[in-house]
Amino acid sequence: MKDTADTARQADTELLICVTCRRKGTLPEGERRPGRALFDEISALDRPEGVRITATECMQNCDHGCTVALRGGDAKWTYVFANVDEAAHPEMILAGAAQYHAAPDGLIPWRQRPEHFKRNCVSRIPPITPAKDLQES
Amino acid sequence: MKDTADTARQADTELLICVTCRRKGTLPEGERRPGRALFDEISALDRPEGVRITATECMQNCDHGCTVALRGGDAKWTYVFANVDEAAHPEMILAGAAQYHAAPDGLIPWRQRPEHFKRNCVSRIPPITPAKDLQES
Repeated sequence: MKDTADTARQADTELLICVTCRRKGTLPEGERRPGRALFDEISALDRPEGVRITATECMQNCDHGCTVALRGGDAKWTYVFANVDEAAHPEMILAGAAQYHAAPDGLIPWRQRPEHFKRNCVSRIPPITPAKDLQES
Repeated sequence: MKDTADTARQADTELLICVTCRRKGTLPEGERRPGRALFDEISALDRPEGVRITATECMQNCDHGCTVALRGGDAKWTYVFANVDEAAHPEMILAGAAQYHAAPDGLIPWRQRPEHFKRNCVSRIPPITPAKDLQES
């Protein structure tokens, strides 16, 4: 068990940012998309240890963008978050990513979880490494 | 390239079904939850080759349950689908899972995609194996 937990802790956390997001609006030609701006703003900040940032195409949450996701190896839940603002939220997102990175299963304790994460979770996907009690036999 | 595509095709597809789903309603005590019923109905059908079925806890799409997800190795997009009905949809879900399994990157061609998948995609998560052109350098 100890080995497994240590391995999970050491896996990189990936912060995925949809850079194609227009946030449900039209955009003047040539203007930087909100998703790209979010990626740029977050990339300009100091990155928490163990967290890397990945630009991605549409995560199909277009009506409630900008959209980010967190994943981190086979032992963690993957989370998708909506309504991220490129001006107000970059530091909160990175702080949340650091908390996620520190949690062996990706579950940030509820009372420590950023308010935005509590209210804007689009969905979560279970770890690749299965929870035994719910599995098909 | 050929080797990569072959490997992707051979990875198992996992159909994840949230068995804790109450579909936003109250439930008489002791009654089987809609999510569990969906899992039971799907499990009773013939499974497409390469597709396995996994019961999972809450995927946090509770307002629009039942919820299923498809994933299949490092080269595929992961998809989350909402508003799945345990009586009407089990065969459609398995047919869609077979199409997903056949698609090397998990993208079912739009015109072949089940209507329900088109209209009820909650979000999708990019492959672990990155698309080079969008990556951070």
